[in-house]
Amino acid sequence: MSLLVVGSIALDTLETPAGRREDCLGGSAVHFSLAARHFTRPRLVGVVGEDFPPRHVEMLRRCGVDVTGVAVQPGGETFRWSGRYRGDLQEAETLELKLNVFEGYQPVVPEAWRDSDFVFLANGSPVTQLAVRRQVPDARFVMADSMNHWIATAREDLLKLIESVHALILNHTEAMMLAGTPNLVAAAQAILGMGPQILIVKKGEHGAALFARGRTFALPAFPLERVVDPTGAGDSFAGGVMGALAQADRVDWQQLKRALLYGTVVASYCVEDFGTARHEALGRGDVEGRAQQLREMIAL
Amino acid sequence: MSLLVVGSIALDTLETPAGRREDCLGGSAVHFSLAARHFTRPRLVGVVGEDFPPRHVEMLRRCGVDVTGVAVQPGGETFRWSGRYRGDLQEAETLELKLNVFEGYQPVVPEAWRDSDFVFLANGSPVTQLAVRRQVPDARFVMADSMNHWIATAREDLLKLIESVHALILNHTEAMMLAGTPNLVAAAQAILGMGPQILIVKKGEHGAALFARGRTFALPAFPLERVVDPTGAGDSFAGGVMGALAQADRVDWQQLKRALLYGTVVASYCVEDFGTARHEALGRGDVEGRAQQLREMIAL
Repeated sequence: MSLLVVGSIALDTLETPAGRREDCLGGSAVHFSLAARHFTRPRLVGVVGEDFPPRHVEMLRRCGVDVTGVAVQPGGETFRWSGRYRGDLQEAETLELKLNVFEGYQPVVPEAWRDSDFVFLANGSPVTQLAVRRQVPDARFVMADSMNHWIATAREDLLKLIESVHALILNHTEAMMLAGTPNLVAAAQAILGMGPQILIVKKGEHGAALFARGRTFALPAFPLERVVDPTGAGDSFAGGVMGALAQADRVDWQQLKRALLYGTVVASYCVEDFGTARHEALGRGDVEGRAQQLREMIAL
Repeated sequence: MSLLVVGSIALDTLETPAGRREDCLGGSAVHFSLAARHFTRPRLVGVVGEDFPPRHVEMLRRCGVDVTGVAVQPGGETFRWSGRYRGDLQEAETLELKLNVFEGYQPVVPEAWRDSDFVFLANGSPVTQLAVRRQVPDARFVMADSMNHWIATAREDLLKLIESVHALILNHTEAMMLAGTPNLVAAAQAILGMGPQILIVKKGEHGAALFARGRTFALPAFPLERVVDPTGAGDSFAGGVMGALAQADRVDWQQLKRALLYGTVVASYCVEDFGTARHEALGRGDVEGRAQQLREMIAL
C-alpha cells in the first residue's frame, strides 16, 4: 500500500570520531525514504533550495523513491545542519543550524497523494505536522515523530497532534519527558492514554520497544562493532517500520513486531557510513540477511 | 548439579523514591542465593557478625539455601551498606559503608563443597576472588562478577582473575571501561580475548546481553511499571542465570540463553520490594509465570 512521508531534506556536515564530511545528503524524510524503499515506493514531500544538487534527486529516484512531492524553492537555500558526535556517539552537538527554505515551510501534500494509506509525519513543529495530518484525513495508519524541543516548547500543540495519530515514535528519554515519569513502562502507558494506539520507543544501542495497551514487545539493536555516523538512525528505523507495515498492508501485533525488526536492520546499516552512503548501496538481500541474523540472535 | 556462591552478606539501609528501610537483609551472596534457589540448592559461603539476626539465617535455610558455609565472626559486626537512589533509580549513592567483618575476610570453601560444579565469585577484591577460585580448581563453570572500582584500582589482579574463569559478568559501562572502548560489541570481543569463553553484560532496564566468540544474544528487561529498590538486581540476575545452568547441568548456547531468561525474571521480582522481601515470597510458579510472559514478549 502507499506510504507518504513529510519531513526535512537537508545537507549535513558531520563530525564523528570516524572523520568529517561536508554537505552529506540528509534530513528526516530522506533517511526515512531510503529505508522504506526496500518495502514499498515511498512518496516524499519536502522542500529544497536551488542549491540542492540534482544528483541527490536522481539517486532518490533511482532508489525507488517517488520524488514528485519535492518542491524546489526559487532563490532559496537548502536546510543545513552541522553536528558533532563525541566518542560514545550518544549525543549530537549542533554546531550550526540554517533552516533556510525549511523555515516556515508549509508542506502541501499533492492532490494525488491524499489517498495515501500509511503516513509518516517526521519530526517538526507539531502545528505543521497537524496541518499535514489534516490533508490526509482518511489515512489508515499515521505515525508521528517528535523530539524534546517540542515537548518542552509546544506541549499543547503536540498533545493535539498525538491525539490525532495512530502511532507515536519517540526516543527513550523523550517518552519519559513527555509522560513526566522516569519509568519507561509507566511512561508508555501514560502516552497511550493520550490517544495513540501504538507507541514505539527508540533506545539507540539498546534497541527499541513497542507498546500497545497491555502489550509490550522489545527488540535489541543489531550488534555493530563500529558505528561511523548515527545521523538518520531514528528516521531510518521509522522508515523500515512504516515500509514493512505498508508492504504487509496490515497493522496487527504480528506485523508491528516484524516491522520493528526491519526498522532495526535498516537503521543498523544507516549508521555504518556517513550520510546516506550505506543506504544507497543496499539491496533487499542485505536487508533480509541481517533480518535473518537478528531473528536468530533473539530466538530462545 | 551443585552451585557454590562466595560473596557478601549485608545489612542494607535503603532510601529510594518509594521509601526508606533500615537494616534490610542484603549482600551479593544473599541475593544470588535467593534467586538461584528456585533451580537448585545453592551453597552459600560468607561471613556475618554476632549482631546478624538469626531469623535471616532461618529464612535462607527455609528457602532452600545451604547456609553451612556462613561463618559468624565472634565479636564482629555484619557488613553494613547505606545507599540512596534518586528518581530514575539509575545509580546508587553510597551514604555509608562499614565493611566490618567483611574487611580482610578470607573466604574458606568448606572441604565438602570443593567439588562444586558451578561457582559464582561475587563482586569483591580480585585477589580474594582468585584465592577462592584456587580452592575449586576442578569446577566445571566458574563465573566472576566485578565492578568499576576494581577495574580502576586492581586491573592487573582482575585480569589474572578473568583469565582463570569461564565467564565474566559486568554491567554495560564496566564492560566498556574494562575494554577501553565506547562500543559494547567491540568491548565484548576484546574481553573475550582476555580469557573467558562467555561474557554477560547487564544493562538494567535495557536488559542483558550474552557474548561468546562470534555469537551474541540479547534479551530485554522484564517490563515493570514500578521499581521500588534496585539493590541486588544484578546479583539476583546472576543467581537466576547460574541456578538455571546448574539445574540444566549443561552449558551450551541454548542453556545460556534460557539461563539469561530466568536471570531476568528473578531480577525483575527482586526490585519490586526492599531488600529480600519479594524474593522470600516467591515460588517457582511465579518464576515460570513471568518466564512465559517474557518468552511471549520477545517472540517474533
